[in-house]
Amino acid sequence: MEKIDMIVNSPHFYTMAGEGVGYKTGVSMAVDKGKIIAIEDTEKIKNEYEGEEVLNLDHHAVLPGFIDAHMHTGLAVMRGLAQDTNNWMMYGLQPFDNACTRKEKLAGSKLAIIEAVKTGTTTIGDFEDGMEDVCSFIEKLGSRGHITQTIREAKRRVYKPGELYEFDENLGKESLNKNIDLYEKWHNKDNGRIKVLFGPQGADFVSKEMLMKVQKIAKERNTKIHMHTQQGDRETYQVEKRYGKRPIAWLNEIGFLDDTLIAVHLTDADDNEAKVVAESGASMILCPGSIGIIDGIVPPSTAFQETGGNVALGSDQAPGNNCHNIINEMKLAALFNKIKYQNPEKIPAWKALRMATIEGAKAVGLGESIGSLEVGKKADFIAVDLNKPSMLPLYTKPMRNIVPNLVYSARGEEVAISVVDGKVIYRDGKILNINEKEVFQEVNKYTDGIGERASKEFWEIDGTNAQFMKEDKL
Amino acid sequence: MEKIDMIVNSPHFYTMAGEGVGYKTGVSMAVDKGKIIAIEDTEKIKNEYEGEEVLNLDHHAVLPGFIDAHMHTGLAVMRGLAQDTNNWMMYGLQPFDNACTRKEKLAGSKLAIIEAVKTGTTTIGDFEDGMEDVCSFIEKLGSRGHITQTIREAKRRVYKPGELYEFDENLGKESLNKNIDLYEKWHNKDNGRIKVLFGPQGADFVSKEMLMKVQKIAKERNTKIHMHTQQGDRETYQVEKRYGKRPIAWLNEIGFLDDTLIAVHLTDADDNEAKVVAESGASMILCPGSIGIIDGIVPPSTAFQETGGNVALGSDQAPGNNCHNIINEMKLAALFNKIKYQNPEKIPAWKALRMATIEGAKAVGLGESIGSLEVGKKADFIAVDLNKPSMLPLYTKPMRNIVPNLVYSARGEEVAISVVDGKVIYRDGKILNINEKEVFQEVNKYTDGIGERASKEFWEIDGTNAQFMKEDKL
Repeated sequence: MEKIDMIVNSPHFYTMAGEGVGYKTGVSMAVDKGKIIAIEDTEKIKNEYEGEEVLNLDHHAVLPGFIDAHMHTGLAVMRGLAQDTNNWMMYGLQPFDNACTRKEKLAGSKLAIIEAVKTGTTTIGDFEDGMEDVCSFIEKLGSRGHITQTIREAKRRVYKPGELYEFDENLGKESLNKNIDLYEKWHNKDNGRIKVLFGPQGADFVSKEMLMKVQKIAKERNTKIHMHTQQGDRETYQVEKRYGKRPIAWLNEIGFLDDTLIAVHLTDADDNEAKVVAESGASMILCPGSIGIIDGIVPPSTAFQETGGNVALGSDQAPGNNCHNIINEMKLAALFNKIKYQNPEKIPAWKALRMATIEGAKAVGLGESIGSLEVGKKADFIAVDLNKPSMLPLYTKPMRNIVPNLVYSARGEEVAISVVDGKVIYRDGKILNINEKEVFQEVNKYTDGIGERASKEFWEIDGTNAQFMKEDKL
Repeated sequence: MEKIDMIVNSPHFYTMAGEGVGYKTGVSMAVDKGKIIAIEDTEKIKNEYEGEEVLNLDHHAVLPGFIDAHMHTGLAVMRGLAQDTNNWMMYGLQPFDNACTRKEKLAGSKLAIIEAVKTGTTTIGDFEDGMEDVCSFIEKLGSRGHITQTIREAKRRVYKPGELYEFDENLGKESLNKNIDLYEKWHNKDNGRIKVLFGPQGADFVSKEMLMKVQKIAKERNTKIHMHTQQGDRETYQVEKRYGKRPIAWLNEIGFLDDTLIAVHLTDADDNEAKVVAESGASMILCPGSIGIIDGIVPPSTAFQETGGNVALGSDQAPGNNCHNIINEMKLAALFNKIKYQNPEKIPAWKALRMATIEGAKAVGLGESIGSLEVGKKADFIAVDLNKPSMLPLYTKPMRNIVPNLVYSARGEEVAISVVDGKVIYRDGKILNINEKEVFQEVNKYTDGIGERASKEFWEIDGTNAQFMKEDKL
């Protein structure tokens, strides 16, 4: 009998190996030193291994932990302050974003990450400034982190309509150096649990020279670039005015589209432009809830996939999504595409589940280590409680209904346990290494101050939500 | 000091009175004999009343209980068996529906109702055969019931493509009599908690004579007709072939459209047809999740509302929705309409919340008694826990973020307490008058049998889900 760290028993394993969902029953999973070392007949596992911990998940389905590939966790301190409005960023977010301090955003990050972990996300794909503190929090919590520091050259000031952003070389240099420092300090830390990517904010916010420099640096370091790509008409306008081409066409021309790039959103891209990106070897992140709420748009992820590209899912931001719950994003990815094409067969449940697991892992460059339950991969997995009303009743023949119910009916509370790198980080409603209540209390402490500082600008802008407050609609 | 049944203290009341959300703070609510008798300054309530029960909901928002206006609860025994396919009813549902017994469907009803109550629904709008047992269950549980018995003349047999349904007068008479009996026995029972409506299945399933007869009967009894209306191309085909007109045009011609009618779905209706229904005084029920999943369509509820009509929300059915969670329907109503019109200002959160409460109540004919928290109305309310991660942090100035977070971020588990007719029916995760576990165990007991009986037809039809089973995608 070999002594190992953990044995996982469950009647239903969705390994996500192969081209479908890799369903296995009658098996158990052996985990040691953070990795999956066997998924075999339960009897065989029982006879060969002795687990220091044994998880008996007898009314659960076990599957890979979810990957939330694109989040701005810090914005969660402003949850629910910027939806239902045109020009989300200026009319909705801006007064509050201007009012927030780094410390307050860090409290938002903690809240968002806790929310994500409690709904089954094991890999946090954060993108923002101030990522050092987020890395520390993720280190303590024990989840996986896929972290991008924002690189930006455009000065933060008010621009006249139609005015080109003014680039500031020093701002660019400074933010790039921060990204490099973060990489040096955190990349591959904690048994590789944390990875650092490079993050030009978008083709409108940095110069061509900066893009090419970042590309070189990322390739030398064997990591990825994570960038908002053709994310809206403002970006398209800026790039067209500067270079005479739409962003994707221009990025293609300068050689920026390749498998180093993870392209986020593609909100303003049509199917043909999505194909250009997919054909280049770049991958895509779809944030259905966020782009649905703030733009009323369904990005061209289906065209991207039909061209052979990999698409991950992201929850983006909470001022206008308003949650960090990847089960919600699976559901919306499926439903929005059914509606876009008026075809109920578009993005079936299994496809949405792949986007949140193995296809997502491939899209963000982690396909070799996570996203499926296979021997040699990291032991990142969750168990879904099949006795929750939303998952009942359970059918195993002539068809199984677990995956459709997970995607279309589950809400998040069905996730009973979450394991990263072979260590339990969430169980019975509680995150083990973090005092959740402290985080919740801290974030609530800041809202009066932020509200007060944002007040003048909020009422001056007099956007949709200001109107709603006056009309007793909030 | 007047002794009364209940005092409710909370920092946030969303009364839904007026045209917005009727927000009040610094007040408490007094409840006696099932009704709201005062919503006044907390001090005043304290000085005037002594409550036998005092609910101190200090980190909660109190709002009217949700109305789920259209459900086929019995189908929940088949949750997750029929999504992601064209021709949902034939390729997806049929093999399982044919295999189910009445007893098994009753277990499904119990499951669906429990799920709905746990996510804040206080009024169950069920529509099906076999409603006596559902009424008994609702009576015991203590929720409000708005119950419709199916009336149908079309024989249940296989029809050739293009063949007109064959009407059977006896079948029609029998089902109408069942509906009348249900009305006699249950209408206004339990202090008016249960109402019975009349339910022709659709203009394709009953004759003109039956429709006119049902209309007369419903009007005489001062209740409503609850009917699937222009719900799909099969209905449109049948009615066009029989009467030479599309369903709404034909129903208008025969005088069936008026304020006795609650028209469900309008899936196959365009904006102009929706306007015809709204102008007649009839109301509409929108089931966004169900119609999104099974048809990939966003019905014309916005045109209906813009014509002045009232629209309620419904969760419809679980084989292809796959949940009975009205928070989900609020969110999808808002998001789908933003996408349909590519306009993030369509169906803001407050509007979606009105559809689930006061507008929904008006739509189903209960606007005088429920849907808002006002003196003289029934005390049907819920409290939402604002300390759940999905609702955090809390802003009160310069804008409140409670309603947007409830609609776009909450999942259901935030509902902490539910009160109907002044009596607590749900608290701390538990339904008080029902043994949930027994229901869950019962419904799971039936799935092997249903699966076995459905198996032959499931594999013969060889639909999308049969393919998925063969391809390891379920």
